[in-house]
Amino acid sequence: MPEKPYSVRPEVLDFAPYDPGLSIDEIRGRYKLDRVIKLASNENPLGVSPGVREAVERASGLVFRYAQSGTPALVKAIAAHHGVDPATVVVGNGSDEVIDLLIRCRATPGKHNAVANKPCFFIYSTQTRLCGVELRQASLREDFSFDWPALQALLDDNTALVFITAPDNPSGYCPAPADLASFARTLPEGALLVLDAAYMDFAEEEAEFSLLLEKLPNVAVLRTFSKSFGLAGLRLGYGIMPAPLAACLCNVRLPFSVNILAEAAGLAALEDTAFRQATFAAVRSGRERLFAGLSALGCFVHASQANFLLFRLPDKSGEKASQNQGLGSKTLNQAESVFEALLKRGVIIRRLKSYDLPQYFRVSVGNAEENEIFLDALERILEA
Amino acid sequence: MPEKPYSVRPEVLDFAPYDPGLSIDEIRGRYKLDRVIKLASNENPLGVSPGVREAVERASGLVFRYAQSGTPALVKAIAAHHGVDPATVVVGNGSDEVIDLLIRCRATPGKHNAVANKPCFFIYSTQTRLCGVELRQASLREDFSFDWPALQALLDDNTALVFITAPDNPSGYCPAPADLASFARTLPEGALLVLDAAYMDFAEEEAEFSLLLEKLPNVAVLRTFSKSFGLAGLRLGYGIMPAPLAACLCNVRLPFSVNILAEAAGLAALEDTAFRQATFAAVRSGRERLFAGLSALGCFVHASQANFLLFRLPDKSGEKASQNQGLGSKTLNQAESVFEALLKRGVIIRRLKSYDLPQYFRVSVGNAEENEIFLDALERILEA
Repeated sequence: MPEKPYSVRPEVLDFAPYDPGLSIDEIRGRYKLDRVIKLASNENPLGVSPGVREAVERASGLVFRYAQSGTPALVKAIAAHHGVDPATVVVGNGSDEVIDLLIRCRATPGKHNAVANKPCFFIYSTQTRLCGVELRQASLREDFSFDWPALQALLDDNTALVFITAPDNPSGYCPAPADLASFARTLPEGALLVLDAAYMDFAEEEAEFSLLLEKLPNVAVLRTFSKSFGLAGLRLGYGIMPAPLAACLCNVRLPFSVNILAEAAGLAALEDTAFRQATFAAVRSGRERLFAGLSALGCFVHASQANFLLFRLPDKSGEKASQNQGLGSKTLNQAESVFEALLKRGVIIRRLKSYDLPQYFRVSVGNAEENEIFLDALERILEA
Repeated sequence: MPEKPYSVRPEVLDFAPYDPGLSIDEIRGRYKLDRVIKLASNENPLGVSPGVREAVERASGLVFRYAQSGTPALVKAIAAHHGVDPATVVVGNGSDEVIDLLIRCRATPGKHNAVANKPCFFIYSTQTRLCGVELRQASLREDFSFDWPALQALLDDNTALVFITAPDNPSGYCPAPADLASFARTLPEGALLVLDAAYMDFAEEEAEFSLLLEKLPNVAVLRTFSKSFGLAGLRLGYGIMPAPLAACLCNVRLPFSVNILAEAAGLAALEDTAFRQATFAAVRSGRERLFAGLSALGCFVHASQANFLLFRLPDKSGEKASQNQGLGSKTLNQAESVFEALLKRGVIIRRLKSYDLPQYFRVSVGNAEENEIFLDALERILEA
């Protein structure tokens, strides 16, 4: 290898195509529906901030220009938002890019390892694999909480990165800030804790986490504009990390990875605090409504600190459905048929086969109307 | 390593920060100017297509949604534009991302090598270095043409990629299609020729290249929406390559690397053929005007097939200025002072220190008015 001009490294040969889920247009066409709602990708339930729309429209005449490399104005605004030094901030084309850069900068292929929970955000496993870095995983506990001792048992002097998602996806579980801090303090000297805080905006203890993290020298925190800021499609994420590491990531990053409209939109999103407050209120009340509604239908629902809920259907089959046990085909068939029935009624949620949780669903908190449509559709399907 | 949680791989330790050049706002502020023109980044001289502006503004309310992963509608439209199979098309967050993916998919760190000219587009050298892949370079000839035998001498059975930029940056030189094809046919079996055709839209022999490339099985062609399509700031590039390789890149690529407005804008840009024709006409006439104007001022100007021109100042110092020779300090001082004098007059062009060509400038073809402003400013400076 390479034997042919199109042959590839053995390490990348078996990457599966990303399963993009179903789009609104696809389901609208397939079932001839006027209205389809999508509660599958944890997008903002209120859509786009008016300030962001204006900023994008105002900047539409500038897209023939390259953005200023490294988007310094945006970095400054993000730093001010968090009260941190701009030299600790790294922006990326989504936090996905920052994850990739962290691995590329810190982990030597074939030597270093990374540690994560199982299941975890798939980007941790694809990017470590692409980089030739071993990913060691500790299974979540039955209740989706983190097994800190199991994680600790995987660490060694070659551990370069430890990925922790909090609140976690797809469960919505969030560890106690003190537990995370204790864990961080036990890491080997060379290991960096990467706290992927994509959903932290929606967590009750966000302030406590922030205070703790300031005191820890071995943590990088990843945040995103995709959720509470409503910019998923524009691709804007960032990391806050020790300045020497941030400098390395910035030097190594492709110089124009963040697009010019993401920069304009990010600046506007940071200023539109009213939209964010409305988003938090909508997520909080919608989360309560969905939790209550799903529970009332007899579903098991996991308590969530994020803008989505993990649930499974009422156990009518007599099979015990638990995270780690073999599942009977009845449970899986029921999950599949309920998923399809929801699609037919114009409701897209997320199955979790890719997380190895085929009996579970994840539903994003929608706006008030969408939440009712979803609960109503599920009720009718379960009654049928 | 890693000894500390912020320490990084030795391979990435010495990456220099990207030199972003000077922005219009910066120069406007520094010299208190009302109008500053930027002819430094090879952007579209006509700005943004009206169709693209409309598409961006129409889609501004959708930025809270993730784009469809892999942007299949755009891939289909690009394939139709070139008359190729969509399975051979890979879109990226700029063609920079496609370059990175090609290296990551094909070249095993520490084993494979890549070959390029010297100087070359800096992304080839940063990304090979980041990937731990040796980059071998053959110096351009004195007249900036390609030294095919010197390139061939660098090839061996571990050569995974050969990067050729045509038309070349910063000279604007374009090899004869037949010469490129002959070179491609002599490559070792495992080597892929990566033809970076970012500026091919402006070349006279574009059609001949396209015909030839169809017949060659070992070529990937990179194109961009940054130039004739006017979408530099939105980040949209693509590669056309053998389908098995394209599939690998698509699987390995971060699933949402292309943003939702780049997709909308790309689709609109492909449809606005009138804007592109106007762009070609503006570049062709502007290129002739700049060539004639610079020559009339006594500058050496390189013949260009791209939307920029490489030139050096009239040789008043008596020093012989050539590409590869040591240069006297007079020549360099003159280049620096002319560059600064242009900035003071509100004209930003590109010095080529990063290409190791400190006595040269690159000026992008602007619109008719900008070209005259530049020539007039340079004339006054040289007369002073």
